Amino acid sequence: MFLTRTEYDRGVNTFSPEGRLFQVEYAIEAIKLGSTAIGLKTKEGVVLAVEKRVTSPLLEPSSVEKIMEIDEHIGCAMSGLIADARTLVEHARVETQNHSFSYGEPMSVESTTQALCDLALRFGEGDEESMSRPFGVSLLIAGHDENGPSLYYTDPSGTFWQCDAKAIGSGSEGADSSLQEQYNRDISLQEAETIALSILKQVVEEKVTPNNVDIAKVAPTYHLYSPSEVEAVINRL
Amino acid sequence: MFLTRTEYDRGVNTFSPEGRLFQVEYAIEAIKLGSTAIGLKTKEGVVLAVEKRVTSPLLEPSSVEKIMEIDEHIGCAMSGLIADARTLVEHARVETQNHSFSYGEPMSVESTTQALCDLALRFGEGDEESMSRPFGVSLLIAGHDENGPSLYYTDPSGTFWQCDAKAIGSGSEGADSSLQEQYNRDISLQEAETIALSILKQVVEEKVTPNNVDIAKVAPTYHLYSPSEVEAVINRL
Amino acid sequence: MFLTRTEYDRGVNTFSPEGRLFQVEYAIEAIKLGSTAIGLKTKEGVVLAVEKRVTSPLLEPSSVEKIMEIDEHIGCAMSGLIADARTLVEHARVETQNHSFSYGEPMSVESTTQALCDLALRFGEGDEESMSRPFGVSLLIAGHDENGPSLYYTDPSGTFWQCDAKAIGSGSEGADSSLQEQYNRDISLQEAETIALSILKQVVEEKVTPNNVDIAKVAPTYHLYSPSEVEAVINRL
Amino acid sequence: MFLTRTEYDRGVNTFSPEGRLFQVEYAIEAIKLGSTAIGLKTKEGVVLAVEKRVTSPLLEPSSVEKIMEIDEHIGCAMSGLIADARTLVEHARVETQNHSFSYGEPMSVESTTQALCDLALRFGEGDEESMSRPFGVSLLIAGHDENGPSLYYTDPSGTFWQCDAKAIGSGSEGADSSLQEQYNRDISLQEAETIALSILKQVVEEKVTPNNVDIAKVAPTYHLYSPSEVEAVINRL
Amino acid sequence: MFLTRTEYDRGVNTFSPEGRLFQVEYAIEAIKLGSTAIGLKTKEGVVLAVEKRVTSPLLEPSSVEKIMEIDEHIGCAMSGLIADARTLVEHARVETQNHSFSYGEPMSVESTTQALCDLALRFGEGDEESMSRPFGVSLLIAGHDENGPSLYYTDPSGTFWQCDAKAIGSGSEGADSSLQEQYNRDISLQEAETIALSILKQVVEEKVTPNNVDIAKVAPTYHLYSPSEVEAVINRL
Amino acid sequence: MFLTRTEYDRGVNTFSPEGRLFQVEYAIEAIKLGSTAIGLKTKEGVVLAVEKRVTSPLLEPSSVEKIMEIDEHIGCAMSGLIADARTLVEHARVETQNHSFSYGEPMSVESTTQALCDLALRFGEGDEESMSRPFGVSLLIAGHDENGPSLYYTDPSGTFWQCDAKAIGSGSEGADSSLQEQYNRDISLQEAETIALSILKQVVEEKVTPNNVDIAKVAPTYHLYSPSEVEAVINRL
Amino acid sequence: MFLTRTEYDRGVNTFSPEGRLFQVEYAIEAIKLGSTAIGLKTKEGVVLAVEKRVTSPLLEPSSVEKIMEIDEHIGCAMSGLIADARTLVEHARVETQNHSFSYGEPMSVESTTQALCDLALRFGEGDEESMSRPFGVSLLIAGHDENGPSLYYTDPSGTFWQCDAKAIGSGSEGADSSLQEQYNRDISLQEAETIALSILKQVVEEKVTPNNVDIAKVAPTYHLYSPSEVEAVINRL
Repeated sequence: MFLTRTEYDRGVNTFSPEGRLFQVEYAIEAIKLGSTAIGLKTKEGVVLAVEKRVTSPLLEPSSVEKIMEIDEHIGCAMSGLIADARTLVEHARVETQNHSFSYGEPMSVESTTQALCDLALRFGEGDEESMSRPFGVSLLIAGHDENGPSLYYTDPSGTFWQCDAKAIGSGSEGADSSLQEQYNRDISLQEAETIALSILKQVVEEKVTPNNVDIAKVAPTYHLYSPSEVEAVINRL
Repeated sequence: MFLTRTEYDRGVNTFSPEGRLFQVEYAIEAIKLGSTAIGLKTKEGVVLAVEKRVTSPLLEPSSVEKIMEIDEHIGCAMSGLIADARTLVEHARVETQNHSFSYGEPMSVESTTQALCDLALRFGEGDEESMSRPFGVSLLIAGHDENGPSLYYTDPSGTFWQCDAKAIGSGSEGADSSLQEQYNRDISLQEAETIALSILKQVVEEKVTPNNVDIAKVAPTYHLYSPSEVEAVINRL
Repeated sequence: MFLTRTEYDRGVNTFSPEGRLFQVEYAIEAIKLGSTAIGLKTKEGVVLAVEKRVTSPLLEPSSVEKIMEIDEHIGCAMSGLIADARTLVEHARVETQNHSFSYGEPMSVESTTQALCDLALRFGEGDEESMSRPFGVSLLIAGHDENGPSLYYTDPSGTFWQCDAKAIGSGSEGADSSLQEQYNRDISLQEAETIALSILKQVVEEKVTPNNVDIAKVAPTYHLYSPSEVEAVINRL
Repeated sequence: MFLTRTEYDRGVNTFSPEGRLFQVEYAIEAIKLGSTAIGLKTKEGVVLAVEKRVTSPLLEPSSVEKIMEIDEHIGCAMSGLIADARTLVEHARVETQNHSFSYGEPMSVESTTQALCDLALRFGEGDEESMSRPFGVSLLIAGHDENGPSLYYTDPSGTFWQCDAKAIGSGSEGADSSLQEQYNRDISLQEAETIALSILKQVVEEKVTPNNVDIAKVAPTYHLYSPSEVEAVINRL
Repeated sequence: MFLTRTEYDRGVNTFSPEGRLFQVEYAIEAIKLGSTAIGLKTKEGVVLAVEKRVTSPLLEPSSVEKIMEIDEHIGCAMSGLIADARTLVEHARVETQNHSFSYGEPMSVESTTQALCDLALRFGEGDEESMSRPFGVSLLIAGHDENGPSLYYTDPSGTFWQCDAKAIGSGSEGADSSLQEQYNRDISLQEAETIALSILKQVVEEKVTPNNVDIAKVAPTYHLYSPSEVEAVINRL
Repeated sequence: MFLTRTEYDRGVNTFSPEGRLFQVEYAIEAIKLGSTAIGLKTKEGVVLAVEKRVTSPLLEPSSVEKIMEIDEHIGCAMSGLIADARTLVEHARVETQNHSFSYGEPMSVESTTQALCDLALRFGEGDEESMSRPFGVSLLIAGHDENGPSLYYTDPSGTFWQCDAKAIGSGSEGADSSLQEQYNRDISLQEAETIALSILKQVVEEKVTPNNVDIAKVAPTYHLYSPSEVEAVINRL
Repeated sequence: MFLTRTEYDRGVNTFSPEGRLFQVEYAIEAIKLGSTAIGLKTKEGVVLAVEKRVTSPLLEPSSVEKIMEIDEHIGCAMSGLIADARTLVEHARVETQNHSFSYGEPMSVESTTQALCDLALRFGEGDEESMSRPFGVSLLIAGHDENGPSLYYTDPSGTFWQCDAKAIGSGSEGADSSLQEQYNRDISLQEAETIALSILKQVVEEKVTPNNVDIAKVAPTYHLYSPSEVEAVINRL
């Protein structure tokens, strides 16, 4: 059965007899190997938290960027191939800047997410900007616009969903269960920080420190926590 | 026999010895895995209803859009790959807007459907707008033009049919039988709403709520039902 | 032997060791699965008749178009992939309109047929308008020009023949024999209608009704019969 | 041995280990399946005769064109894929017209033949006008220019030879032997007609009639025989 | 071992593990099947002689051109695929004419040969003028420029050598041995004619006549021998 | 298992069923065969040291360049395919020069690294500047900008990390362990030189001489050590 | 194991699982079959010597060019596919001429070598000037610029090294050992000539004559030895 699957991989973007797109499914596998990221939406704003996987004490932790700013009012956490995520984020930054410039107002979070997914969907098409394979990355996009705070989740197929809370990456299964137990729509931003970090703690398999996790919020503007701010959240656990 | 089939998949858009286009057939398989959607035409207008498959309580139900507006007088319900459907709908929106702008009148429902199918037909052609594979989606297109209300059904081969009533997706076989029993051309729009929802109820395998179904009508303009409007229909069952 | 054939399918448009073009032969197989269509030439004009295969009572019979107008003086019946036929017909419509516009007179039926076949022949060439595979459709082209009425038959290889009478599609073998028995050049248009429908009746395997057959004539202009006109022919049987 | 051959077919225009071009050889096989055509050069002009293979009594014999005019002073008979031949003839017509227009004199028969063969040679090159496979057709090109009458024979490899007399198609082997016995350079045009038809008679396997053979001459201008002119030649047999 | 070779043919122009280019080697095989051609350089000029292989008495011998003029001072004899040779010769003719036009002096024989080989080398590159496979032809290029008479030999790899005397084609092995025995730099042009023809005689396997051999010289301009001039050489044997 | 892997290599840049990009992994193997390079960041600046692998006494050691200047304030050490590294370095040089020219200030070290990695990421995309395979090289990029000294490490996937100290190439595993033992952030530049060379000494497997190692520093400008400066460091060991 | 290798050849320029580029390795095999070439650098200039392999007494030895001038101050000796070498040399000639024209001074030897290698590296990229496979040739580039005499060695991967002395081709292994024994940096140009020829003598397997070896020097300008100058060196052996 494994052999017949391989037949379908050659045409990068074609259906299998069961109606499946294997390259997209394989890209999703790449994300299951990725580091865990968590997002929670509160009425005050959205919190993002990621596991950093700093593999060597000689690596500079701040250079392992798994949370990035897209625009002043939008940020995202990622899991999967970091270099692919950078391309998507760079694309979104250009889109949001063009939008502000043309219309004199910030791009909505949904439009930004849609723009990202349009690029992701067209892999294998030979366009100038598209890749020859799916982007091997999932994103949690946190933003704040005229509709208030919002959290979106994207996968390599170019599909996206709006969520209250979501985990991605290798620890996502357990983390999603914990979120369903601990999350409700009325938690405060501070509670969201604590929930995110307590769940990451179970995943990281070692002591949580400002070196191996990152936290950011969009409330209503993007802010990446400094090591001491992360330390403060850790101390609350 | 399975092995010889795989030979034909490589050339995305080529005939098998029996005169079949396997990629199109495989795309149709993708739709058989999709959520169920139902459309009914009445003299007052057309009703569309879909199963939403909200997989997690933390997902925002309103972000799972399986019914979309194309123009003021046209809407569609979809089953299959949502990201593919978005591309088709976006294409149709541009076509209808260009038509209004150029001719000062709304595009007919059949022309809009034809425009969608032209794009779907040309997969694998290397055109700028076409995909490298069939679009893995079926649509129920509901509209209202100078010929009155109409309902069209499209499949991944780029073929379309005009229907009185039609179901697509994983539950379509049973739903189509129920439609043949319960539908006649003289039902009212309200009766159509009730029939659509009662059939979806059998498919959804759990309690029908405003969270897991969506309803829209074109009568004569597109309107997506609010949760309370959906609730009202549910209460009539 | 089956396996070696598959080798030749990959190069869409290449010869097999026996000098055959398999993709064209496979496309011809697709037509053998198609609905039956019949054409007869009389001195008064040409009659076309098709089986409609309306698979569900909820389908709108008039939306299953298997006879189409190309120009005021030319129409065609089709068997095979309907979406492919639409592309060919659309191409022919543009050609005939350009011709009228440029030369101030209608395009001849043979030139129109040639233009259709030029497009069909060039599959797999990567041209803008051509397909990546053969068009999976046969056409019966009925027309009337300065040479009087004429009937042409085209196949997926881009070849065409002028005929007195011809059947295509799944029932073509039996229908062609019946035509050879019943047809002669001196029949009236009304007799041609009756012959066409009586032959279709044997093919359709159920009662012939205005819902499951279509009739058109070019005499000397194109006219698609209304349900009551079809009913009238049925009553003559 | 068959399997190893198939390896070479994929690269449409590549050598086998024995220095052979299989696609060209396979195209030549296609011609061996084709109808028979015969050409004879006399001092008065050139005669072409073909078997028409009208497969059904309902087919219009005059629409089975296997002899075509290229220019006023050049005609050709063909064997193999008719649709391919049409493309070559159309190309030659444009070339001869351009030549007359630019130089004010008719294009020589050899230059016309060379132009046809240049197009045939470049199959698989991705040029705008060339095919993705060899043209599956052989031509007998009859012409008359300042060097008097001439007869050329072309094959799918793009090679051509000048001949006194030549047969192509499924019956060519026997027909060539008969030509060597019966032909000499001093026969009259009328004798050439008789020889051509008597040889075709052996090939056609049924009674020769104006319906199943065509005759044309270039002497010094192209003329396709009417049914009564063909009848006259038959009566001389 | 044969099977592994076939792997390398697909990439038309790639190395095998032993550092070989199989497509070039296969093209060289094509030449080993070709007719024999011989060239000899004398102080008075260069002689070329070829076997014509007129396969049928009805073929016009003068239309089997295996010696061609490139420019007034350059001619060539060929062995292998005649249609390929015509393309190369046509390219060389354009090059020499451009050179005369631009510089007001004839192109040197070496530069002409180099231009031919540049085209031959670039097969499989997708350039406008290059072929998708090696040119299946070897040439003997005879010329006369400010350095006096010269004879070049080219092969399908795009390599060339200057020679005193050389044979190519199916009989080249035996002919080369004979040349080494009979040739020296001081022979007269007339002696060269006799040597060339006496060697061809052994190869041709039948009586040598003006119908089955061609002779040309460049001394110092290109001249193709008339049948009577060939007859005269034959009579000297 | 080895065979199934090979299936995925053909699409240069596609995912395997486990979500892996084999071509990138294979390129990383190429680096494991490469010579060892070491980088250490100190407060005074960054030190780079490489093993040169001069394979023959007749080779000019200075022509084996494995440390190169990118801009006045940036240098890099490489391991893997030297010709690939040259292309990347050349690209970075153009980028830094364009930046200085456009903005009147040096490009930051991170932006330069990002520009290098953007090029590396897009292999197999058919862009003008990108390669058809991953770049088979890892770089240690040492620089000094307004944020002080910094050291980056890039791999063939287009990912980069900021490090305090890092080893790449065939001896990287042992060298990284030694670095973790001997490095701390407070060492002087001179101590960094000594550590780098003492670690290379274990790798090189022969006596360390100015002929088989190179050292450079960016403190704050790029400087490649002369043989006598290298000698001086060796003498301190 | 051989079979798995062949899998990687199809993608001309892709890595094998062990991180190897097989097409480059196979091209290197092509050079191991090539004729031997030797280069030696002295303080007075650089000497190049090659084995000519004149396979037939009827071949003009001077037309077997394996040493070529690139510019007045640069020459090169080659081993491998001569036609490939000509393309590289022609490219280098254009580069050096452009450089002189633009900057009014000769291009340095290293820049010329780099330009050659840039072209060699980009095989398989589809650029206008690049090949679809690696260039199957190694070069010894001898030059003299403001840094004095220099000798470079290039291989098919696009890598180059500066050397004091180097041998390439089928006899390179033995020749390199001999060079290491006999060469030192203080030998005179005349001694270099003698060493080069005495080493070639062992390789050639027959008597060394002006017909089967070529010698050139760059001291400081390029000069190819006449037969009598070669004779003089032979006599010194």
